[in-house]
Amino acid sequence: MIYAGVDIGGTNIKIGLVDGEGNILTDNSIKTNAGRPHSEILDDIVADIRRLCDNAGVDFHEVDGIGLGIPGIVDQRTGTVSYCANLGWRDIPVTHLIEVISGKHAEAANDANCAAWGEYMYGSCRGMRNVILITLGTGVGSGIILDGKMFGGIATAGGEAGHMIIVKDGLQCNCGLKGCWERYASATALVEQTKAAIEAHPYSLMAEIARRNGKITARTAFAALEKGDAEAKKVVDRYIDYVVTGLINLGNIFHPNAFVIGGGVSNEGAPLIAPLEDKLNAGLIASAHNPRVRVLQASLGNKAGLMGAAALVMEKRD
Amino acid sequence: MIYAGVDIGGTNIKIGLVDGEGNILTDNSIKTNAGRPHSEILDDIVADIRRLCDNAGVDFHEVDGIGLGIPGIVDQRTGTVSYCANLGWRDIPVTHLIEVISGKHAEAANDANCAAWGEYMYGSCRGMRNVILITLGTGVGSGIILDGKMFGGIATAGGEAGHMIIVKDGLQCNCGLKGCWERYASATALVEQTKAAIEAHPYSLMAEIARRNGKITARTAFAALEKGDAEAKKVVDRYIDYVVTGLINLGNIFHPNAFVIGGGVSNEGAPLIAPLEDKLNAGLIASAHNPRVRVLQASLGNKAGLMGAAALVMEKRD
Repeated sequence: MIYAGVDIGGTNIKIGLVDGEGNILTDNSIKTNAGRPHSEILDDIVADIRRLCDNAGVDFHEVDGIGLGIPGIVDQRTGTVSYCANLGWRDIPVTHLIEVISGKHAEAANDANCAAWGEYMYGSCRGMRNVILITLGTGVGSGIILDGKMFGGIATAGGEAGHMIIVKDGLQCNCGLKGCWERYASATALVEQTKAAIEAHPYSLMAEIARRNGKITARTAFAALEKGDAEAKKVVDRYIDYVVTGLINLGNIFHPNAFVIGGGVSNEGAPLIAPLEDKLNAGLIASAHNPRVRVLQASLGNKAGLMGAAALVMEKRD
Repeated sequence: MIYAGVDIGGTNIKIGLVDGEGNILTDNSIKTNAGRPHSEILDDIVADIRRLCDNAGVDFHEVDGIGLGIPGIVDQRTGTVSYCANLGWRDIPVTHLIEVISGKHAEAANDANCAAWGEYMYGSCRGMRNVILITLGTGVGSGIILDGKMFGGIATAGGEAGHMIIVKDGLQCNCGLKGCWERYASATALVEQTKAAIEAHPYSLMAEIARRNGKITARTAFAALEKGDAEAKKVVDRYIDYVVTGLINLGNIFHPNAFVIGGGVSNEGAPLIAPLEDKLNAGLIASAHNPRVRVLQASLGNKAGLMGAAALVMEKRD
């Protein structure tokens, strides 16, 4: 059996053909061009699945279903997107439309939940029943798997943990609230924090690395830390502290087996992941009397979403 | 059928006999005298259940099971309390011990979860599948019902939402963390906030009410607000804002049908509950595209815990 997994983002749409064991046969990326009519986007997705089939020597008829990850509020039972700010979608019956265009069965879920589902099915937390995926990227995303099931509340909206308020009356967030976790723990926030530190310490190694690269990125502070820069250590320590704050909040509420860290910043690996796990467990209530909560690096990279989306239709069809 | 429900607190233990429809036949309260051996406490509980039976004209043999709410981390499957700070308990097989002493089947769960379960079974949120009980008392407690089941993570420890950090690097909490929600939203915190406002405004009506009563309580600011005191309004508004902050965080993560507010402060009723619901829904992400989240006053008062505890054994026996 072959399934199509689609991970719709505000900028790009990642599409892949996945077999029943979670192997990606072929995949690519097309432009979202957000703002155009949803029908055009959905037509493009199905056309691309046909193209991928041609490239992989797979008959389109062999594709047994199409799973979609959507960056918004999805009612998984009906396949309707009630709201997606990035795409400007409201009340779009997305699985129905994909089924009409493609003649295939379709399923849809929130994109962060799909990524969590991908990691749960094929990635670094396989076999764990209670896991929370946190993506540290442009924002902070979260996908929650409880007792082996995707969790999203009554609206199946995806846990919006990135908008947990961790600094009351803190930095203004796009969502309208102030002090949201993602204003402190996203890659975007790390760049801001690095920028401020470079302005305050223009002769630090971190500042030199930024000048050499011609830009400040979420890597800059970690790169300087590798070379022993004291100012970079302060930036990274503080950033890790912000990430941990949200993990502690979620950990005390959910008591998961593990957090899986994805998104661009997760590529830093051990210098990020190891202190996160230590500080998380130090901060959890009565942690000595509970199993240690693992913090793991996501292993599917930016393909977790499409793999999880493909797995949505497997479940329903197999 | 008759069931015994027991709600163990750090100071008092509330015990009641409950019938299969959730009616309390008789109940009372005994001293915990925390610190003494757990066997003494458990003996006292069973002795009191016998006494309640005598008072109610019920034969002890008619009691079909004993449910216990414990203020700590309880593994509900094994009935073992791994950790309870208030009682100094560690790894106590509490249901086993109660069964040995009483000859009755016993079940145990975290006390906040029991209270949530009581409200869910018999109280103000009956019929709702996803509800979160928040108790505003000495601390802030939380019990979470998801899809009609008590939720507690892998350790069945009860969601420790009161220790959600909402003010990074904020006020020191007993748990070791800083800026926990309960440091701002508990009855204790409201008293502190009222005290500070009275010191700053010694000629306010609020200050006068406190002097007249000879003490500052969690009622003081609400009582002065009823009489139109501007300083009291500031205190109450700010307090409500702190409570809402935590509700927004939980609301964006769980998307429940309702929050049920219990604990001493909940007795304020509409002046507390109505603004909580409005501000919560105003703060939720994409709230216009989701069902309105209700905020309800708990209706079982301080008997929610023992009723929920009694319901634990009903489920298993009926």
